[in-house]
Amino acid sequence: MIKGQQSIQFEESPFLISSASVVGKKEGEGPLGKMFDMVESEDLFGEDTWEAAESTMQKEACLLAMGKEHLEPADIRYLFGGDLLRQGIATSIGVEGLGIPMFGLFGACSTAGEALALASMSVAGNYGDYMMAVTSSHFGSAEKEFRFPLGYANQRPLSAQWTVTGSGAFILGKKRSHVRITGVTIGKIVDYGLKDSQNMGACMAPAACNTIIQNLEDFGYAAEEYSRIITGDLGYVGQSILFDLMRGRGYDIKKNHMDCGMTIFDQQTQDTHAGGSGCGCAATTLSAYILPKLIKGEWKRILFVPTGALMSTVSFNEGASVPGIAHGIVLEHC
Amino acid sequence: MIKGQQSIQFEESPFLISSASVVGKKEGEGPLGKMFDMVESEDLFGEDTWEAAESTMQKEACLLAMGKEHLEPADIRYLFGGDLLRQGIATSIGVEGLGIPMFGLFGACSTAGEALALASMSVAGNYGDYMMAVTSSHFGSAEKEFRFPLGYANQRPLSAQWTVTGSGAFILGKKRSHVRITGVTIGKIVDYGLKDSQNMGACMAPAACNTIIQNLEDFGYAAEEYSRIITGDLGYVGQSILFDLMRGRGYDIKKNHMDCGMTIFDQQTQDTHAGGSGCGCAATTLSAYILPKLIKGEWKRILFVPTGALMSTVSFNEGASVPGIAHGIVLEHC
Repeated sequence: MIKGQQSIQFEESPFLISSASVVGKKEGEGPLGKMFDMVESEDLFGEDTWEAAESTMQKEACLLAMGKEHLEPADIRYLFGGDLLRQGIATSIGVEGLGIPMFGLFGACSTAGEALALASMSVAGNYGDYMMAVTSSHFGSAEKEFRFPLGYANQRPLSAQWTVTGSGAFILGKKRSHVRITGVTIGKIVDYGLKDSQNMGACMAPAACNTIIQNLEDFGYAAEEYSRIITGDLGYVGQSILFDLMRGRGYDIKKNHMDCGMTIFDQQTQDTHAGGSGCGCAATTLSAYILPKLIKGEWKRILFVPTGALMSTVSFNEGASVPGIAHGIVLEHC
Repeated sequence: MIKGQQSIQFEESPFLISSASVVGKKEGEGPLGKMFDMVESEDLFGEDTWEAAESTMQKEACLLAMGKEHLEPADIRYLFGGDLLRQGIATSIGVEGLGIPMFGLFGACSTAGEALALASMSVAGNYGDYMMAVTSSHFGSAEKEFRFPLGYANQRPLSAQWTVTGSGAFILGKKRSHVRITGVTIGKIVDYGLKDSQNMGACMAPAACNTIIQNLEDFGYAAEEYSRIITGDLGYVGQSILFDLMRGRGYDIKKNHMDCGMTIFDQQTQDTHAGGSGCGCAATTLSAYILPKLIKGEWKRILFVPTGALMSTVSFNEGASVPGIAHGIVLEHC
């Protein structure tokens, strides 16, 4: 059902049936290390290139999520997937072997939200019993894609974030579980004109602010009606800007805000500067840390808001700004 | 309604309400030249870079499609868009100013099919009255992205295709028109192991074959029940492979097959080698040439199958194969 300006409230809400998280070594050493399904000790995941490693990680996450529910690829009607690399190649190569009809997505680090939104819309629209949503990012492939090859050992400003090596996969459907996606708020592109690709938190905060407020208005919720409002990867810089922007519009979410990028690493000991980022950051944190709390009922209702910085090496070399986008997913214990 | 293994047959089929095509100079000089809504004489579209030109073209196509139906951006619930550039930047920058909540997509040249599928699924799922689907490609930005900057004047093999400079935008909804999207067949990634990025027709033909046969099986149609089966951009090389592959599986579509890449340019006089390609090829041909025939009832039912070659410069430099994907859209006169 259409809800307000940008949202959908599902009449029959899809269940989040299964999920899995696969991460790299550094993520395994972080505060959530023991919660991930699989921690690989070598970030190449047995492959020759970072790109192939990311594909393998994504495939493993899908297989694990299916395996937990004893599902085969043939049981999954459609797959919604994406990553940060040019032409979404990690996803194309990663999910190819599964043979599931697929939709390739790009929403930068907001892709986990985009994939969950479309997968839940497809279940609620009666287009299939099981849908898969998967995203990934890899520190090695992302540094090569957007910044410098790792061998250059370049210096990173304190506002830079550390791309999470990880993939999260989710299966949505009609089969009962303890978590439902009850609604979604699809984000608009928001551009405050910032051009610093090494300060993505600042670039994404306005989009997060926009989507969160739109969600509260569309659904008529007060911020406190969410156990947590969880952004994807604003990091320390982006969070502080988000708080300022929201205060400017009369909202205070300081008490119940959480950011996956600030949760997945220990900034003090892991040298991750402003925090974690990447499609895999929000997805693996949702699977490993957030969902268990929802399943147990420790959290009743959360707003999950993966945030993306829409840029490419070409766009920032040509002097374009870095607009942001954020999609909101309402998850509830049931 | 779920139909067969990979398809959906809509119970209440969305209407294709409006569309627009914007193309460059060379496309304007081709066989369909007079049918496009807008032909720009300068391929930079008044901008400084090919990327900005592509964004402007995409924005113009959206505005034209809305203008024809006297719709404003605020009337469009969600936008589904994509292009060929890394991180879909032409779409992000192009549609940013419209302020429509958006889903960024990547399916290489199959993106027009992916966008139409998701937009029609969203209308039929009652998620809004109007949805927009838009895709684009630009010869200048695509050569720079995938091959060489134009200034290098590199030689192109005869199997190479010419990326169409063009954008097609479509508005789907519940308001009555003379064309409905009655079903979709979502494609799987199909990989025959080909590694020649300059022979995309060969890379995509197996995916087209797969999706077409799946569509016929899922819906129980004979190939002749379609006025035309229209692939996106297989070109001359890909078409001949498609015919061979389909004959091998007992299907003959020679009589009613059409390829947008072989239709949009005159191979003899325009030096376009194996034919046109790009997200904009299928989209602009659909808007300018195919839809008018469906609206008049000259064609009753067509299967529109945009085809994509899933590769990036990194993947082919690393020796990966170029898998294909194709999505099928069933359009009917009503």
